[in-house]
Amino acid sequence: MSDAPGKTEYSFSQKHLLGLADYSADDILYVLEQAKTFREVLDRPVPKIPTLRDKTIVNLFYENSTRTRLSFELAQKRMGADVVNFSAGTSSAKKGESLKDTIRNISSMKIDMVVSRHESPGVPHFLTRCVEAAIINAGDGAHEHPTQALLDMFTIQQIHPELKGKKVAIIGDISHSRVVRSNIIGLKKVGADVVVCGPKSLMPRFTESLGASVSYNLEETLAWCDIAMALRIQMERIKGGTDLFPSVREYHETFGIKMEHLEKFPDFMVMHPGPINRGVEMESEVADSERAVILNQVTNGVAVRMAVLYLLSGGDRT
Amino acid sequence: MSDAPGKTEYSFSQKHLLGLADYSADDILYVLEQAKTFREVLDRPVPKIPTLRDKTIVNLFYENSTRTRLSFELAQKRMGADVVNFSAGTSSAKKGESLKDTIRNISSMKIDMVVSRHESPGVPHFLTRCVEAAIINAGDGAHEHPTQALLDMFTIQQIHPELKGKKVAIIGDISHSRVVRSNIIGLKKVGADVVVCGPKSLMPRFTESLGASVSYNLEETLAWCDIAMALRIQMERIKGGTDLFPSVREYHETFGIKMEHLEKFPDFMVMHPGPINRGVEMESEVADSERAVILNQVTNGVAVRMAVLYLLSGGDRT
Amino acid sequence: MSDAPGKTEYSFSQKHLLGLADYSADDILYVLEQAKTFREVLDRPVPKIPTLRDKTIVNLFYENSTRTRLSFELAQKRMGADVVNFSAGTSSAKKGESLKDTIRNISSMKIDMVVSRHESPGVPHFLTRCVEAAIINAGDGAHEHPTQALLDMFTIQQIHPELKGKKVAIIGDISHSRVVRSNIIGLKKVGADVVVCGPKSLMPRFTESLGASVSYNLEETLAWCDIAMALRIQMERIKGGTDLFPSVREYHETFGIKMEHLEKFPDFMVMHPGPINRGVEMESEVADSERAVILNQVTNGVAVRMAVLYLLSGGDRT
Repeated sequence: MSDAPGKTEYSFSQKHLLGLADYSADDILYVLEQAKTFREVLDRPVPKIPTLRDKTIVNLFYENSTRTRLSFELAQKRMGADVVNFSAGTSSAKKGESLKDTIRNISSMKIDMVVSRHESPGVPHFLTRCVEAAIINAGDGAHEHPTQALLDMFTIQQIHPELKGKKVAIIGDISHSRVVRSNIIGLKKVGADVVVCGPKSLMPRFTESLGASVSYNLEETLAWCDIAMALRIQMERIKGGTDLFPSVREYHETFGIKMEHLEKFPDFMVMHPGPINRGVEMESEVADSERAVILNQVTNGVAVRMAVLYLLSGGDRT
Repeated sequence: MSDAPGKTEYSFSQKHLLGLADYSADDILYVLEQAKTFREVLDRPVPKIPTLRDKTIVNLFYENSTRTRLSFELAQKRMGADVVNFSAGTSSAKKGESLKDTIRNISSMKIDMVVSRHESPGVPHFLTRCVEAAIINAGDGAHEHPTQALLDMFTIQQIHPELKGKKVAIIGDISHSRVVRSNIIGLKKVGADVVVCGPKSLMPRFTESLGASVSYNLEETLAWCDIAMALRIQMERIKGGTDLFPSVREYHETFGIKMEHLEKFPDFMVMHPGPINRGVEMESEVADSERAVILNQVTNGVAVRMAVLYLLSGGDRT
Repeated sequence: MSDAPGKTEYSFSQKHLLGLADYSADDILYVLEQAKTFREVLDRPVPKIPTLRDKTIVNLFYENSTRTRLSFELAQKRMGADVVNFSAGTSSAKKGESLKDTIRNISSMKIDMVVSRHESPGVPHFLTRCVEAAIINAGDGAHEHPTQALLDMFTIQQIHPELKGKKVAIIGDISHSRVVRSNIIGLKKVGADVVVCGPKSLMPRFTESLGASVSYNLEETLAWCDIAMALRIQMERIKGGTDLFPSVREYHETFGIKMEHLEKFPDFMVMHPGPINRGVEMESEVADSERAVILNQVTNGVAVRMAVLYLLSGGDRT
């Protein structure tokens, strides 16, 4: 496949995908460019391309994740890889084996790539110091979730091919989201403007250091943005602070995207990483409207993961 | 493959398999005819036929089911499909996502077919209104379990090629069985006679409306029938009513098939959808006798599911 | 592939792998010889060889086992087999179906091989009396775990090609280990000398009847041996007897392999079936030293399982 856009001397040289913090703007745009090819594959009658026929991949999930695991597994199988799933419920973790020993054992079985989901930030980085296999971060605590950010950026590109200067609002539970971190990092690198918007009790300090502006006013945010990316309110993750934390009804009233917003501000498009709490992050009609590209994000997720798997397997170097 | 038996203008046009209620007699007989081919494949040294090599199938099981899931998965893999399993234990269902959003998400990953098992009647029908993929019902509550009925009918056909006029007795816990509903519907459509037999406390009203006769006398039923299909006593499903409900011992005495029945009535064959409670639905020796075709039902299950997958993937139209 | 070493008239005629008790020395050496070929396959850039493309294998795991299941599954997939996993958590076992009925049902779906892990000794032997499929024991209680012993013997052979006369010490919780039983049986058959070493409270009587000597002195044992195979202290399996049983700290002091041992006795190599309790069975530095071949055991495990699957599928007879 071709060189990265705009730089003839560019060559993708990443071995892992731990987070977008480690990727340059060129790396990110190159992955997105490759993903276009795989998105076209997905639209064919037979959405398969056997470029990983010789590879063995372990999906090492210490946290449950239906859609991310399914998306990776489909990407892998459509590329012809041998896939083995390893989930914490049936793992040596229960027997007290260290993560280092587990990954070195798995790696000794001659594995090419490991897709890792773990509740602790930094686990994928740690894995790269233990084994030779390529490591892909499928979420490490509230730290990063780079393939989600890449699929979000890919989806924005489908609407606005030039990401530079685009105005992206991320709305909701900013504190507890790995999606928001990876998105801010990635979007800033490629020159987009990012505003995060949500209740004060769910607004962390790190966003400003990453270059995102903060707003507590949904209407102003929607008036400004090209893309409104609502985040899931992860009720199960919020601990303590019930005085300050809004009720679900209050949250929806203040920060939920409503049909009246779509009418009043006709330009922004609506995204959501799923699963949606209908009637909380947005009215159900908003999620089903033509302004929402939420299901397209899901399709793009498979394409972006195919691209990442392809590049990290050294596919473009052969 | 050839046209349906006896009707040159017949063409199979079903998109889904939700229940036998939606299938005509011709549809049913056509599936059974196709299943013969796949049954022959299973008897080859290499029981594989890669007709689904280009298809991706999700097995969406919200209820545990070893044998049905295994049977579908083997059918799929032997036909070369890409298979991804999704079970409730690791699903977004726990996060409160609606079934509609879950299935639309899965479908957005470019899935060709979904095999659905769910505790609520009507779920597969609902799924067809959400997505484009072909939906196969692998059991929806106590409503239908059409592939089980098809494999039962296929097994009867191996003994009595002409189903019309055959006398089928279904014995046991009629109230809580999806197997019995699909079997009555299917068998009546192809012209068989059906008697249901069991304790009054486990006898629902719907059987007569479906065209089955009711008997409370096992001996009379066995004297009459060509096929005695015993149903599993699903102890875990029975709620309340311990006064009226017979004990396990009483059940076996009154409705269990015994070796003495095989001797007294030498013509009927014994079926059971499994798993058997030996010593309850029948004496252990009955299950292992030459009059039982229970393990053949299991083999036929794979063949019938291969036929259904083949037809719903449009295989016979190419 | 060639005949067994040293016997032109030898022909491998085993149908199952239930335990090394049922294998002759020639059988064992023949499996190890075949495993060399597969070990070379694993060192290729593409570690695949599609010799089981026509086979269907069920991994029937009634007990959790990450590494053994993963190792078998990778061996199977790299040989191109169709693989279906069946674990107790989602099984008919919960519905009270007998093991015999379960295995006969699975077998009726036209399965070539079953890999069985079960907490009860003798389960794999029982399975061979129920079905036609080849049965491979992946652990039956504290009885046998033959593929583990074969991979251990293969690893020893890599260091000392001639197993006859080699001195192997097995150190640790001898009572609760299926690994130790299979290793003693196998090693004695091929002419190695075996000493078991551990606390009296964890020393069963059966070792002497199998031909192993017993030592309660670690230093003497390490001075003697060519190979020191430490066993996992399975805390979760030890019941009662806290007076006699040493504490973890006491155990490590008395029976843990330490760096000072490596210096004092420069000849023995260190093995461990994993998962290691670092700081219990051995000092962490010992596990990571050049004297340890623990990760190589893991790689060899895949190769040995490929050889076993190949031979039991009749691969060398075609």
